[in-house]
Amino acid sequence: MSARAGIVVTGTEVLTGRVADRNGPWLAERLRELGVDLAHTVIVGDRPSDVRDALAWLSAAGVDLIVTSGGLGPTEDDLTAAVVAEFQGRPMALDEALEGRIWKVLEGLRSRWPDLDEEAIRRSNRKQALVPDGATVLEPVGTAPGLVVPPAPGARGPSVLVLPGPPRELQPMWATATGTAAFRAAIADATEYRQHTLRLFGIPESEIAETLLRARAGGVDLDALEITTCLRRGEVEVVTRYEPPAQATYEAFEAVVRERHPTTLFSDDGSTVDEQVAALLLAGGRTIATAESCTGGLLAGRLTDRAGSSAYVLGGLVVYSNEAKAMLAGVDPALIERVGAVSIEVAEALAEGAIEALDADVGVGITGIAGPDGGTPDKPVGTVCFSVALRDGDAPPRRITRRVVLPGGRFDVRDRSTTIALHLVRRLLRGEAD
Amino acid sequence: MSARAGIVVTGTEVLTGRVADRNGPWLAERLRELGVDLAHTVIVGDRPSDVRDALAWLSAAGVDLIVTSGGLGPTEDDLTAAVVAEFQGRPMALDEALEGRIWKVLEGLRSRWPDLDEEAIRRSNRKQALVPDGATVLEPVGTAPGLVVPPAPGARGPSVLVLPGPPRELQPMWATATGTAAFRAAIADATEYRQHTLRLFGIPESEIAETLLRARAGGVDLDALEITTCLRRGEVEVVTRYEPPAQATYEAFEAVVRERHPTTLFSDDGSTVDEQVAALLLAGGRTIATAESCTGGLLAGRLTDRAGSSAYVLGGLVVYSNEAKAMLAGVDPALIERVGAVSIEVAEALAEGAIEALDADVGVGITGIAGPDGGTPDKPVGTVCFSVALRDGDAPPRRITRRVVLPGGRFDVRDRSTTIALHLVRRLLRGEAD
Repeated sequence: MSARAGIVVTGTEVLTGRVADRNGPWLAERLRELGVDLAHTVIVGDRPSDVRDALAWLSAAGVDLIVTSGGLGPTEDDLTAAVVAEFQGRPMALDEALEGRIWKVLEGLRSRWPDLDEEAIRRSNRKQALVPDGATVLEPVGTAPGLVVPPAPGARGPSVLVLPGPPRELQPMWATATGTAAFRAAIADATEYRQHTLRLFGIPESEIAETLLRARAGGVDLDALEITTCLRRGEVEVVTRYEPPAQATYEAFEAVVRERHPTTLFSDDGSTVDEQVAALLLAGGRTIATAESCTGGLLAGRLTDRAGSSAYVLGGLVVYSNEAKAMLAGVDPALIERVGAVSIEVAEALAEGAIEALDADVGVGITGIAGPDGGTPDKPVGTVCFSVALRDGDAPPRRITRRVVLPGGRFDVRDRSTTIALHLVRRLLRGEAD
Repeated sequence: MSARAGIVVTGTEVLTGRVADRNGPWLAERLRELGVDLAHTVIVGDRPSDVRDALAWLSAAGVDLIVTSGGLGPTEDDLTAAVVAEFQGRPMALDEALEGRIWKVLEGLRSRWPDLDEEAIRRSNRKQALVPDGATVLEPVGTAPGLVVPPAPGARGPSVLVLPGPPRELQPMWATATGTAAFRAAIADATEYRQHTLRLFGIPESEIAETLLRARAGGVDLDALEITTCLRRGEVEVVTRYEPPAQATYEAFEAVVRERHPTTLFSDDGSTVDEQVAALLLAGGRTIATAESCTGGLLAGRLTDRAGSSAYVLGGLVVYSNEAKAMLAGVDPALIERVGAVSIEVAEALAEGAIEALDADVGVGITGIAGPDGGTPDKPVGTVCFSVALRDGDAPPRRITRRVVLPGGRFDVRDRSTTIALHLVRRLLRGEAD
């Protein structure tokens, strides 16, 4: 039996949907890396009874570790430490040395905002230095300490790792937590898992359902594998987790996927299309520039999400208006007049305009109708035209073009378009045919 | 006692953090609009027992309605309908008319991918047309029908609304669901709530904690209000929910916030800074253009997230490299040589370059060090310089500039920078001083 964990994300702002939770997914990945099985993630409000109920449910489900995020701030509704202390039967006590260390951090804050009320800060300071008796204290990254709180002496049940809500505090503190004796004791039963991710582009999810059926019919013991498939930003992702004795079974399954999806399987090592495009650009010593209409800068933003992208991203043109298409990318206004701004021809002119304007090797042009308005019978909402071009000395550029009609709302159309553009760049750089 | 609900998000890909959940937050907001109190959101894997455990926990917590998302797809691990049917004690049966309607949708899919296996599609079709006896069927938006499944006749417990996972299917189906008699019966006890959102920019969250204490000390009965505060993309958001008799109490609280935070309170009507900037640009008949280095197009992407933004967004320059800063925005390479690419001077040149290149009224220049590398003692990682400029005929442009050092990693620095830029544009357009 492997070690099992539950996650409790606290905060009315997360529960009510006003703030997206970044901690649950991040913690889930970290637990998996440690071989800890995640049972459930629960999102609860700031009421103490909500947090207590979630702890009780996960504890009853038999988990070995509960990780909480949030509720360690200075405001009155930040109650996680106190609720966990009560749940574990350990009284709270002021850690004076910790109070002093937090005060040092707060002095930096006071110098940035000199008008703050000192008494209010002192109170916050004291609140954040109250810790459950017997807990392991994790040094604050911001002003809130984390905690590893084992069950009371003689009691049974999970240990609770209490982490702050802001991801930039939670993430470094996780690394500290996993090094503590209290944490390692809680997950002593972790199993070794292996995990492989396959990514495919250009097929519907139902095709993978069929592939699983065929693998099973062909004698692959799928019950020894934990396979999940999902659509993610326009790609189909197949993640398989298994214990080491099932290695041969996994390999047989992967062979079936390879055989049925030779051209759409683009990643078998966990790499994303973003990583592959970055690696291809770096390997070829090539630079890239974009000219985006409907995506409005999202592709350039996605390319520059990666640290080190300045080695190959020169920049881009956001050509939302027709005037901008002419002024920045040199698109002939008469061409737009003749074929419309959303057309293969304009996409090609944009890709070449990006190459020209930035003296780049690769240019990407995107023009489309993200909606909700602007659709016509010929060009419904979701119509997007792409062109990617690779400069080749004085010869005409090599290029791939596409016109697609994407489903979904404005957000989906724009996001999906960045994925398609990256796949076209990948094909272009690999020398694949249009 | 108000109607209460729970949300169950299913899917190993969500639980394991590989896919961000967009449905839980969206459903939470919709429930609140209906005056339904959200107790908890639970994220579970694809194992039937996980879904069953979550249904049982929420049922034991006394909710009137459970909303599930996901697990209605064509693959073998999509089991939500069957688990809910069993939980409610209602056997599954094939709805042949529904099977026929789904088949019509699938024929469209087959024409796009002619090579698909017909037998596989027939099987998926049949699986998706199995529905619990006595359930209200919600017509598919994609190929999966939704369901409203009341408890079995004579049984007590929550009704379960079963929705598909893809947001573009779930969202329109929610509107259908809320119109059904079965749904309305489940939430018959919904209370009327009022909700107000205040947003502040430029103060730490601890200042709001102090404001709450002062309001209480000044006699405002905060216990009649449900106040949550949180940091969201660099802003402090204060959301208050209350029943109508507490209206005067809320007004007293808001007056205290106004008095203590006259300049940093920028929104008292729920509007975001994005909406305010859009409205100011439209009202003044002004156009905007960007020139972004470290944010790499994210600000242009954020400005064009809004439908209708083509009325005021002309476009932008992504000037990631120094060459791009010179070529696209006309920044003098000697200036970069002298003061560095990350400097107030270069930010100003970028803002003016954006105005020039796109013939815009408002220009925004952003240049900074998003990290993780590139920091120096003088300009640590997180240093970002901003300039926003408003063209004013032949007179020199009016401008506001800022240099800040932002905490957090690459993602935070880039995202936070777009928020700061929008606030500077807002101040500029409102004619506020630098």
